[in-house]
Amino acid sequence: MVLQAIRYSRGSLQILDQLKLPHEEVYRDIWTVQDAWDAIHSMQVRGAPAIAIVAALSIAACVARCNKNGADPALLGPDMTGAGLISHNLQILLTSRPTAVNLADAVRKLEKVVWQAQQQPSSTDYSINEAYIQAAEQMLVDDVRDNENIGNHGADWILRHTETIFPAGKLSVLTHCNTGSLATAGYGTALGVIRSLHSRGYIKRAYYTETRPYNQGSRLTGYELMHDNIPSQMITDSMAGALLGLKRDAENINCIIVGADRVAANGDTANKIGTYALAVLAKWHNVKFIVAAPRTTIDLNTASGQDIMIEERRSHEVTTMRGPAVQRSKDGSLIVGGSVHEIAIAADHHGAWNPAFDVTCHTLIDAIVTEKGVVEKDENGEFHFEKLFAD
Amino acid sequence: MVLQAIRYSRGSLQILDQLKLPHEEVYRDIWTVQDAWDAIHSMQVRGAPAIAIVAALSIAACVARCNKNGADPALLGPDMTGAGLISHNLQILLTSRPTAVNLADAVRKLEKVVWQAQQQPSSTDYSINEAYIQAAEQMLVDDVRDNENIGNHGADWILRHTETIFPAGKLSVLTHCNTGSLATAGYGTALGVIRSLHSRGYIKRAYYTETRPYNQGSRLTGYELMHDNIPSQMITDSMAGALLGLKRDAENINCIIVGADRVAANGDTANKIGTYALAVLAKWHNVKFIVAAPRTTIDLNTASGQDIMIEERRSHEVTTMRGPAVQRSKDGSLIVGGSVHEIAIAADHHGAWNPAFDVTCHTLIDAIVTEKGVVEKDENGEFHFEKLFAD
Repeated sequence: MVLQAIRYSRGSLQILDQLKLPHEEVYRDIWTVQDAWDAIHSMQVRGAPAIAIVAALSIAACVARCNKNGADPALLGPDMTGAGLISHNLQILLTSRPTAVNLADAVRKLEKVVWQAQQQPSSTDYSINEAYIQAAEQMLVDDVRDNENIGNHGADWILRHTETIFPAGKLSVLTHCNTGSLATAGYGTALGVIRSLHSRGYIKRAYYTETRPYNQGSRLTGYELMHDNIPSQMITDSMAGALLGLKRDAENINCIIVGADRVAANGDTANKIGTYALAVLAKWHNVKFIVAAPRTTIDLNTASGQDIMIEERRSHEVTTMRGPAVQRSKDGSLIVGGSVHEIAIAADHHGAWNPAFDVTCHTLIDAIVTEKGVVEKDENGEFHFEKLFAD
Repeated sequence: MVLQAIRYSRGSLQILDQLKLPHEEVYRDIWTVQDAWDAIHSMQVRGAPAIAIVAALSIAACVARCNKNGADPALLGPDMTGAGLISHNLQILLTSRPTAVNLADAVRKLEKVVWQAQQQPSSTDYSINEAYIQAAEQMLVDDVRDNENIGNHGADWILRHTETIFPAGKLSVLTHCNTGSLATAGYGTALGVIRSLHSRGYIKRAYYTETRPYNQGSRLTGYELMHDNIPSQMITDSMAGALLGLKRDAENINCIIVGADRVAANGDTANKIGTYALAVLAKWHNVKFIVAAPRTTIDLNTASGQDIMIEERRSHEVTTMRGPAVQRSKDGSLIVGGSVHEIAIAADHHGAWNPAFDVTCHTLIDAIVTEKGVVEKDENGEFHFEKLFAD
């Protein structure tokens, strides 16, 4: 069964609570806009595309119930109707994670939809609501479809660049952080490529890093790969070198594939801290290094990685760790599920450097996979993204 | 004040309990051989040289009290005396960590001392005990002196290979795992080089990795550097690339310096997992990569890294974590010191790969620092260790 971190049908929205993952699978009803605000603010839902979709759909579910039942008191600002009500709620949701670029982008697009619906001669609250609902639902459909296209383009490219012949030659890959259904509207970007390879029967094993300091790999990617029954194994970030050195041939480790937070005009890529070291190791071991991301991630206004500011976060995010208590059974196996504790894991609680991202130079990247196709470097070693934006 | 993980005076031995570090500083009396066995077996003391020294000194403390007070009931095997008693206890201690090569080596040397003392015409229990005590005490002295020599040779070499001119040009270094007073008889190997640089006023900052999965860096190296007031900052293993990329010039990061578990005859070096990736990054960023270890670590019977077996340990050592509970004060700072919990930190508790070591090819190593001096590669890129063993 496909992992659905966002469960939507007209008038109804639920999200998988990522604060409880991987140890508990709890779906939360998003009934009101306030519910959505709380879920985003508290990080029950995270991942820039996922946040934008949940915000958009939470209003869609409310106004769908409005249209079916008349006015819905669950919406904030009950003294308004139609366009005003939707815009008001979009602005409220924008404050749930002020730095989320995709959310701001979605709000801008949806406000335009509402404005256009309002300009129709026969416009009513009902017709404006309908226009909004359709646009928000289309966002969900488009995002999942884009990710599936990323997955397919990436899998095609990897299979073209390998001599693997199924079934004798399944291949293994390594990924970093979480780029799957839990970070997007569904399917995922880098993890979407792995899903596509797996659906075609080509995955021998998907290795994934723990991804310190937030452990999105061990907590979220591990959960997704287990959910989809994709053969997988975790490594700490420090083991990627040993993995390539010791297992590259036996496991046919073919490529390292990661997502992106921002791709500059020259292909330099900002992504989760640790990505850059993986790219250097890929080059050293002559395995492909692939970035998978939607076109919206490519920022042609940023000339190169030099122009990307690296956010430095607080030390204690590195020096503490949260999780449920474990106990050992008599045979030594782990019993997980005690109450959740936050523990100290370092001598110096204020002395850790904590850059959230690093920048990988385009020279280390073999291919950038988008929903519109794969971009490789030209004979001068330069990426050109213009064609992706031709439509 | 010098960090003393092992406190010894004739007839008395205490160790700093490393299971309580970094959050509590508790010294344990080692009064009996059983105390020493328990401390080693439970890993209150760890690090191959430290284990050997504690084992040797625990018997020395007991027989010193014997010689002062007559027979000591605290010794195991009270029906024996002199040479038999010491050998019996050495064999018992050998079982405390069966895989510790340095411990076996120390036991062999000390048994020879006892045997030789026994061969003396005027040999008595007292004289055998005295010979043993002196040999064990000499081991402690020699190991600390060897480490100080490693530190000085390493610091000399680094300063020769840099244009740094004090005080304008202090330098920064990066180290991995724990190679300090907590792992050795005192002072340390790679951390000894950092101590030596610091004592001469050359350290701008010592960066150290967390060193997943056991966090010897964040727990032990962090503790030692804070103890010695050496300016330091922790990074996760995944941040080494970003550190070199973003801070190399501003912080004058001059070299990466690590210890070794085993150095093969060609210079290939087995060390804590994650070392190899650091060596690749050092090469990529053109900073020196230095291995610091006593000559006993160089194994001329191992031709190359290909011949070194990599121990794979259990998954749950990666997927769980122990530490004291933390709480937040009103200003957001951490209050550490609640009861110790073990928590789960991954989705898949049995699916992690856990190699304890990796092997760094000699091509990536610029210098190997021993107590007898620094070995560099010849014009063919080959290390030669014969001269180190000429005496």
